[in-house]
Amino acid sequence: MTKKLKELKSIINEITDISSAAAVLGWDQETYMPKGGIGDRANQMATLSKISHQKFTSDKVGDLIAESKNEIKGLESDSDDNRLIKVLDRDYQKSVKVPTELVEEMSKANSLGQQAWAEAREKSDFSLFESRLKEIVELRRKYAMIFKPYDHIYDPLLDDFEPGLKTADVKETFEKLRPKQIELIKRISEKTEIDNSFLLLKYDEQKQWNFGTDVITKFGYDWNRGRQDKSTHPFTTNFGRNDVRITTRIEPEYLPTGLFGSMHEAGHAMYEQGVAPNLARTPLGSGASLAIHESQSRMWENLVGRSLPFWECFYPALQKTFSKQLGDVKLSDFYKGINKVKPSLVRVEADEATYNMHIMLRLEIEIGLMEGSIEVKDLPEIWNTKMQEYLGVTPENDAEGVLQDIHWSMGAIGYFATYTLGNLISAQLWECINKDITNLSDQIRKGDFSALLAWLRKNIHQHGAKFEPQELIKRITGSKITPEPYIKYLNKKYSDIYCL
Amino acid sequence: MTKKLKELKSIINEITDISSAAAVLGWDQETYMPKGGIGDRANQMATLSKISHQKFTSDKVGDLIAESKNEIKGLESDSDDNRLIKVLDRDYQKSVKVPTELVEEMSKANSLGQQAWAEAREKSDFSLFESRLKEIVELRRKYAMIFKPYDHIYDPLLDDFEPGLKTADVKETFEKLRPKQIELIKRISEKTEIDNSFLLLKYDEQKQWNFGTDVITKFGYDWNRGRQDKSTHPFTTNFGRNDVRITTRIEPEYLPTGLFGSMHEAGHAMYEQGVAPNLARTPLGSGASLAIHESQSRMWENLVGRSLPFWECFYPALQKTFSKQLGDVKLSDFYKGINKVKPSLVRVEADEATYNMHIMLRLEIEIGLMEGSIEVKDLPEIWNTKMQEYLGVTPENDAEGVLQDIHWSMGAIGYFATYTLGNLISAQLWECINKDITNLSDQIRKGDFSALLAWLRKNIHQHGAKFEPQELIKRITGSKITPEPYIKYLNKKYSDIYCL
Repeated sequence: MTKKLKELKSIINEITDISSAAAVLGWDQETYMPKGGIGDRANQMATLSKISHQKFTSDKVGDLIAESKNEIKGLESDSDDNRLIKVLDRDYQKSVKVPTELVEEMSKANSLGQQAWAEAREKSDFSLFESRLKEIVELRRKYAMIFKPYDHIYDPLLDDFEPGLKTADVKETFEKLRPKQIELIKRISEKTEIDNSFLLLKYDEQKQWNFGTDVITKFGYDWNRGRQDKSTHPFTTNFGRNDVRITTRIEPEYLPTGLFGSMHEAGHAMYEQGVAPNLARTPLGSGASLAIHESQSRMWENLVGRSLPFWECFYPALQKTFSKQLGDVKLSDFYKGINKVKPSLVRVEADEATYNMHIMLRLEIEIGLMEGSIEVKDLPEIWNTKMQEYLGVTPENDAEGVLQDIHWSMGAIGYFATYTLGNLISAQLWECINKDITNLSDQIRKGDFSALLAWLRKNIHQHGAKFEPQELIKRITGSKITPEPYIKYLNKKYSDIYCL
Repeated sequence: MTKKLKELKSIINEITDISSAAAVLGWDQETYMPKGGIGDRANQMATLSKISHQKFTSDKVGDLIAESKNEIKGLESDSDDNRLIKVLDRDYQKSVKVPTELVEEMSKANSLGQQAWAEAREKSDFSLFESRLKEIVELRRKYAMIFKPYDHIYDPLLDDFEPGLKTADVKETFEKLRPKQIELIKRISEKTEIDNSFLLLKYDEQKQWNFGTDVITKFGYDWNRGRQDKSTHPFTTNFGRNDVRITTRIEPEYLPTGLFGSMHEAGHAMYEQGVAPNLARTPLGSGASLAIHESQSRMWENLVGRSLPFWECFYPALQKTFSKQLGDVKLSDFYKGINKVKPSLVRVEADEATYNMHIMLRLEIEIGLMEGSIEVKDLPEIWNTKMQEYLGVTPENDAEGVLQDIHWSMGAIGYFATYTLGNLISAQLWECINKDITNLSDQIRKGDFSALLAWLRKNIHQHGAKFEPQELIKRITGSKITPEPYIKYLNKKYSDIYCL
């Protein structure tokens, strides 16, 4: 009866296997691969991605999708099979439009771009990266234009990371968010600076590691289906729902990096570990989008991990572990310390109040580049001007300014907005969760995260990529992605901390 | 001019990339993969091996091989391209003969076989493995018969591991070896048992690890293109010549396991690290055969690592590292201790004098199974009888008897002989090396292995799989694989140690 669907699934299973294999190679590259292996690894990765692309964009897959559509007519809209075909059809239509030559051209430009960026960043000299970035931007424009007609040239890029999301939606959301964020930051800046010097002492690395793993174990991260390693840039990766790995970076003289890094990645990982088993080996068997993913990581890192109830539970153990550093630091001072707001130059080190400003700046630049209203050569100046305008700080050099992030060098234009969207979604979900679990704070105060995780499993995780992000959030919260809950959350939190 | 060859190479490069990717997944599985990942990993591996098999056995590859043959007519016989086509042709002709259904049937039987074996071994009950092994043996017979006509039904199996080698050759070699080994073991058994109790003390694991890595660093193992991890069963794997990894197992109360294990694997690894770069991403870019590989590992482990000159150099440092355990042990006693001969039940723990007896027993059984003169159900009894006959010991149960090795459960019938062949080749090469490097002992006594490694690089490593094992050994030593040098080596060594 569903012969074609079965045939299609078997091909899709293999394509997913290849992607998983490539992800294993990627994990290995960032964790254990010896330096000398880099050249061969690039070949192996390129071959796997070529084969998977060829398999997916074949006429056969196109035909099978069309035929499967017929076979499953009458199935419920939300059924796994119906959703699978919908997603495959969407991805297929998008993929086949892109000429193989352009795929290869982009892949090459991104690879050269990363090299140039790394050198430019090291020497803090944007000019070494400029021509490569110009090429990348040109190729991104060329790529986007394939998908004409669109409302905005940035739409197809955004859509790669957030299926279905439009530039106009993001702009509107960010317009609402910006003045509220600026106001909050201004009010905080008028208050006395918080002393967090106790976080900047020497903290034994093994003890940091152990404390972090204890916390995420209590969160519910399943070690039987995961592991944690060290890497320069922390990340989560998965090869199916049964092998979801995280990495972390421990700073010997700054406690928050490792601790909140582990919580953040565990948030991503528990999402993947919670996807329904029957979605395995298909594109549905993974998170819905980067923004939904980020909502999970930021929720565990910030709404849980930087909350007072959490530390009412965990601070005694932390204090005992680091009695020399924290023995004399009161819980309330510790809580303030880990929530200190201070405009700074680097996104990945930013606090909750200023983080989104870093993203807005990047989004405006990306949109300008794609529209053609901003030129690559002007980026350092534009960057520095906007930093001064939004955060009141100016980078002393390109390395801590326009060159700080790797994303553009990899061609990942359209990615940054998902960080802020993730923040917004985390608060939007948090409001719902607290309606459903009325004593959540008490549970967290007892170190009990089981109801929270169960809620996330049921409402988010299990669905994998069955629903597009806006649809998923609307199903759960009743409205599309909106900034109000996040603004409310920030204002409440910092009013308490800073007595605003 | 060589358009078809170029096209062929580009396909072969991709197939090699896929194999390398699969090898990364295999390495990960044995080292860091969380338990829960096993099911998905099996799918990923199966998909990669299916794709690589499909690609290689396609008509296109067959045509390109035929057309390339024409293009390279007139090339020197030993040129890389000529050898590549020869090897591809050989492998292609063999691969296309095997029906896909049989490949799948074997793969399934091996996978079930491994599970059954693991359980049977744990419960020490051969009957739990019997029916699975019977199926595996039947499939191996079916597989072999595809390649009729042959001199012996065992030939096609042996050929998978030792291209070109015939069962008759191996039998002849082993016939010569057997009486000499038995005689040597008997003479040793009449002497006083060596005391090696000092090796069975508590040795700090980290110190063991460090000492082992120091030794293989001095051997010449290139850490920029490799790394060492821990695993239950030590192995070497590589993903090209620039990423060749080894694993080791440290026994907290038995010094030789980790120490000689690292030397052994480094011997394998330096072989792969030494393959000529221009053979990369082809089947020539790896070792010639299992026996040649084993000759390298055994050479570094035994002819170097268990030799007196080696320990004249390294013993003071070892003694200093483990002063409590070895402070009062004289070099001559240590040397005797690590070379103690004692017939035992388990192959992987056997000394140099008895090791080959374990292999001969297995080879005879394998040949019997393939010829049909031995039945699977009789294996435990046959095993125990032969053990008594060859080594004078009888297993108390199947776990330490017929179930000790994983090979048959994986369908790897035809593999065991390569261990003994490797031993023989190591001594055969050693004779040549000592003619070319007349003061080798003195160099080893100074901890200088550079001339030895250079010799191996030049005569063995760089050639990768360009030459079949017999051809390679004949090119170097002037004769085919022969047991005399090994017999001579053993007799000389043990005459000194045991005053025979």
